[in-house]
Amino acid sequence: SGNFDFTDNSHRRFNPLTNSWVLVSPHRAKRPWMGQQEVPFSPNEPEFDAKCYLCPGNTRASGEINPQYPSTFIFPNDFPAVKLNQPNFIDDGKEMTLKDRFMRAQQVEGKCFVICFSPKHNLTIPRMKIGELKNVVDAWAKLYLELEAEARTKATPYKYLQIFENKGTAMGCSNLHPHGQAWCLSTIPDEVDKEFRSFAKYSKEHSSCLLGDYIALELEERDRIVLQNDSFLVVVPYWAVWPFETLLMSKQHLCSLADFNDQQKLELASIIKKLTTKYDNLFETSFPYSMGLHQAPLNAIQQANNSSWFHMHFYPPLLRSATVRKFLVGFELLGEPQRDLTAEQAAKRLADLEEEVHFTEIR
Amino acid sequence: SGNFDFTDNSHRRFNPLTNSWVLVSPHRAKRPWMGQQEVPFSPNEPEFDAKCYLCPGNTRASGEINPQYPSTFIFPNDFPAVKLNQPNFIDDGKEMTLKDRFMRAQQVEGKCFVICFSPKHNLTIPRMKIGELKNVVDAWAKLYLELEAEARTKATPYKYLQIFENKGTAMGCSNLHPHGQAWCLSTIPDEVDKEFRSFAKYSKEHSSCLLGDYIALELEERDRIVLQNDSFLVVVPYWAVWPFETLLMSKQHLCSLADFNDQQKLELASIIKKLTTKYDNLFETSFPYSMGLHQAPLNAIQQANNSSWFHMHFYPPLLRSATVRKFLVGFELLGEPQRDLTAEQAAKRLADLEEEVHFTEIR
Ligand SMILES: O=P(O)(O)O[C@H]1O[C@H](CO)[C@@H](O)[C@H](O)[C@H]1O
Ligand SMILES: O=P(O)(O)O[C@H]1O[C@H](CO)[C@@H](O)[C@H](O)[C@H]1O
Repeated sequence: SGNFDFTDNSHRRFNPLTNSWVLVSPHRAKRPWMGQQEVPFSPNEPEFDAKCYLCPGNTRASGEINPQYPSTFIFPNDFPAVKLNQPNFIDDGKEMTLKDRFMRAQQVEGKCFVICFSPKHNLTIPRMKIGELKNVVDAWAKLYLELEAEARTKATPYKYLQIFENKGTAMGCSNLHPHGQAWCLSTIPDEVDKEFRSFAKYSKEHSSCLLGDYIALELEERDRIVLQNDSFLVVVPYWAVWPFETLLMSKQHLCSLADFNDQQKLELASIIKKLTTKYDNLFETSFPYSMGLHQAPLNAIQQANNSSWFHMHFYPPLLRSATVRKFLVGFELLGEPQRDLTAEQAAKRLADLEEEVHFTEIR
Repeated sequence: SGNFDFTDNSHRRFNPLTNSWVLVSPHRAKRPWMGQQEVPFSPNEPEFDAKCYLCPGNTRASGEINPQYPSTFIFPNDFPAVKLNQPNFIDDGKEMTLKDRFMRAQQVEGKCFVICFSPKHNLTIPRMKIGELKNVVDAWAKLYLELEAEARTKATPYKYLQIFENKGTAMGCSNLHPHGQAWCLSTIPDEVDKEFRSFAKYSKEHSSCLLGDYIALELEERDRIVLQNDSFLVVVPYWAVWPFETLLMSKQHLCSLADFNDQQKLELASIIKKLTTKYDNLFETSFPYSMGLHQAPLNAIQQANNSSWFHMHFYPPLLRSATVRKFLVGFELLGEPQRDLTAEQAAKRLADLEEEVHFTEIR
């Protein structure tokens, strides 16, 4: 296998977190693009937008008026994907009829929150100050702890809190105001569940943690590292699907935000700022992405031997420029995800980029 | 569980084909949309476009000139995702080091084809004649049989042929000329592999075919049926993810296009035309989608007890209008897919729509 060239020959790579494959076609990046163009960056948004339902003082769909919040602001989503206090629906799991076999459902209860990162309408994470971002991390941790306490008293059926951000219209964001979401559910979402299964299987087989061992390997290999500080490591994972996908992991075994000390929260804020600055600098645009936190389930942080390991996924769609994205469509939906450059190529480009100065500050 | 309302209460449903879940939030369709708008339908494309590399007589990126083809036209993709004649790469599967554990790769060889459905630049499947569509089905079958014969002689490492179409810029299509693709690979793509595993498991457990039993159930239940004829059934599957996703299945056990007789090919052409006419009529636009065929692997159609079952998936992104799509982003990528209406609601809307007359013919 000596002549096989991973930078030119088609191959597939295995994702041990979700047990799935990705097809890598590193020779394909050269093809011309005549398809959809993304909306490029427009730097002229105002600091306050009277029509924005997330800006301080404005009225939301529910009729409520946002307070004049000075930093972060969390409120329940006016159009939540899950609700509380539904009638009970119990699936007894018995398979008596064909219907039981094919029409399996579970009720899902929960609560959805919106998290405004800043009162300023025209900010984005890479352009916020580290102190402001530390407030965001603090708000995430506070929400996690509050809901975990509720789950512990069994007042609610909460099992998992999925914190995430959709940034940019290309990633389905319907409002530019810097904000993320948090969906709290009575079930463990599928992707998270796959990871927990992989973690548990790995711990059993190897008596160590999957992400802990992976971090050790990436620190040795070095060619997929994008950024690191004392507490966190960011890599383009070996099995990345999105062109510039990254995986941010705590170097130590922290199960969730509940395990973070103040220094770790600050270092998380700092590395997120640097990573998103690199992203913006890559194509000199406000880089769209979906990102989110994966951590311990709400009803499990008390458990010993918790195999959860705090990490974040960043899934950015742009491929070649501020306006040309990767579409994960036909073959990807029917066959398997396909990418057009290697993880190592993406990592090198991101690693080489400026991380302290945002491109808008240079011009 | 009598009071649980599947049209109003949040729940999740299980997909027995791929072993995954989808979160259903039927109460959520009402939320306002201020995000990205899709490009609406423009009916004024010319029948011939001198700049289109798929039109007859034009020159492609490779320098080759397209023939003056009268109906369908298949040629090798100038920018294939997989290549033939690569150096060998053998993964011995042994886990000696951490690297073996986390950096698992397989080489993938293969060939990619482009399939022009018609010489006319401005046609789409719903606006083609049934005879023209029958030519497309014939071309798919011919390609499948040719590659299967090559695979049987072991001249090539082909295992699977994924035939698909990306239609519309919203689904990453970079050229409006009516065309699909076919990727022939030395591996079974992940999504297909999941289905084969489910089929095999089901056959073993129930001594019958998963899709055969599912068809029997849907014919009895009726509330998810969109269309049917003697040979095929189209439903919005109970576990649909995309708003108006459909599953088209052969009613009889046909493993692949190799099993089709001429009448079945004609009925496939006919039902595809009706389904895509309904799609276009839903929001009076050229409805974007990714669609594709799932059938027996190339190296397996000789096997007795083949548990493959011919079917097609249609994944259309539009949710509320010609310009407002569903984004499967943050929660969907990090947690699990989420939909805003039930499969039954989507099926009823599609079933009620005109299927013979395209909206452009009425106006
Ligand atoms: O081959 P095309 O049409 O240029 O490209 C399109 O379909 C491919 C197969 O689904 C995807 O990998 C590409 O991202 C998409 O843009
Ligand atoms: O909640 P939003 O921002 O209106 O909506 C966005 O994020 C949700 C969660 O990822 C998705 O379900 C929606 O399709 C997307 O448009």
